[in-house]
Amino acid sequence: MADPPDRTSSDSDEEIMRATYRALRDHGYADLTIKRIAEEYGKSTAAVHYHYDTKDDLLVAFLDYVLDQFGETIHEVQTTAPEQRLELLLDKLLVAPEDHHDLLIAMLEMRSQAPYKEAFADRFQQNDEYVQYLLRTVIDHGISEDIFTDVDSEHVARALMTIVDGGRTRAVVLDETETLATARRTADEYVNAVLRADTGGSEDT
Amino acid sequence: MADPPDRTSSDSDEEIMRATYRALRDHGYADLTIKRIAEEYGKSTAAVHYHYDTKDDLLVAFLDYVLDQFGETIHEVQTTAPEQRLELLLDKLLVAPEDHHDLLIAMLEMRSQAPYKEAFADRFQQNDEYVQYLLRTVIDHGISEDIFTDVDSEHVARALMTIVDGGRTRAVVLDETETLATARRTADEYVNAVLRADTGGSEDT
Repeated sequence: MADPPDRTSSDSDEEIMRATYRALRDHGYADLTIKRIAEEYGKSTAAVHYHYDTKDDLLVAFLDYVLDQFGETIHEVQTTAPEQRLELLLDKLLVAPEDHHDLLIAMLEMRSQAPYKEAFADRFQQNDEYVQYLLRTVIDHGISEDIFTDVDSEHVARALMTIVDGGRTRAVVLDETETLATARRTADEYVNAVLRADTGGSEDT
Repeated sequence: MADPPDRTSSDSDEEIMRATYRALRDHGYADLTIKRIAEEYGKSTAAVHYHYDTKDDLLVAFLDYVLDQFGETIHEVQTTAPEQRLELLLDKLLVAPEDHHDLLIAMLEMRSQAPYKEAFADRFQQNDEYVQYLLRTVIDHGISEDIFTDVDSEHVARALMTIVDGGRTRAVVLDETETLATARRTADEYVNAVLRADTGGSEDT
């Protein structure tokens, strides 16, 4: 059951993460077991336990993996022009590839466990703070270049994340195909109203 | 274990629903058992099973109960003036009483199970359609009275529900106290921008 000598430990980690993704996709979070992950991995449960003591340890690693991958797709957004950059960030947050629906389901299950599992909560909190930071930065940049209205960028970043999280939750819970597209359109309308108002903004912002 | 003769079946139902609420609040959805509900109910598990065959049957009844109660608080909104009525509806959707946080957690856990449990999915779907209907109706009323801009009320109702669901999800997942207040403010900004625009609205709406 030892890895072949030509494989590094990080190869195994990557394979276990991919196996976890397939097991989550097929069985869901509630029915996920180390046995099912091992089956997808093509090795014994001992081989999985060699890398991760418990299912929760493995799932925390999986959250790190997914959120890292998301961070990488965000790095693909290299435009620095504020309007285009904000559009592209919102696209990344709300335009999911077709096969992502099952991942959205598993992520909502894990998010719902955040109140009980501190390590899950930490990851979601950190990821949210990182994305908020990216949004705030592009908004502040746009304000400093007089492209955007001078708003409370911290609130606007949180408002946009509220729309993003609403779209993602609804994509899982409801029998509606356009939940992410609705959220994307809502984010656009919000950006147009709050950041591109010709006046100095209302007293609310 | 039979109910005292002065109690009707609906008294028992109501008591079991309240016991379920307390059990959910204290143990969470994942650790909820009929035994724990029976303990809160102050009777045997058989007494609970007399009313509900399975835990899922009981939880579906609980969802009906919670969503009915929500419907009743909505009926308290008797104002018909479109602007005020929309404000009050959004208040009901996003201003949670203090002790509601644990219910929000349990509801998100159940929402995350919608892809696996059709009876859960049905309830969430019906409730969402009902609230969307209320929002659409008040928006259409405002449009017909020239108080609101002539927008796609179906989209605006969905956009507002996206903001509501985002606020509720974030209230559970994140260590932020103001998630519902942020969502409420975002909904106001959205309403101001989309429904109270002085022009006929942009091409997007």
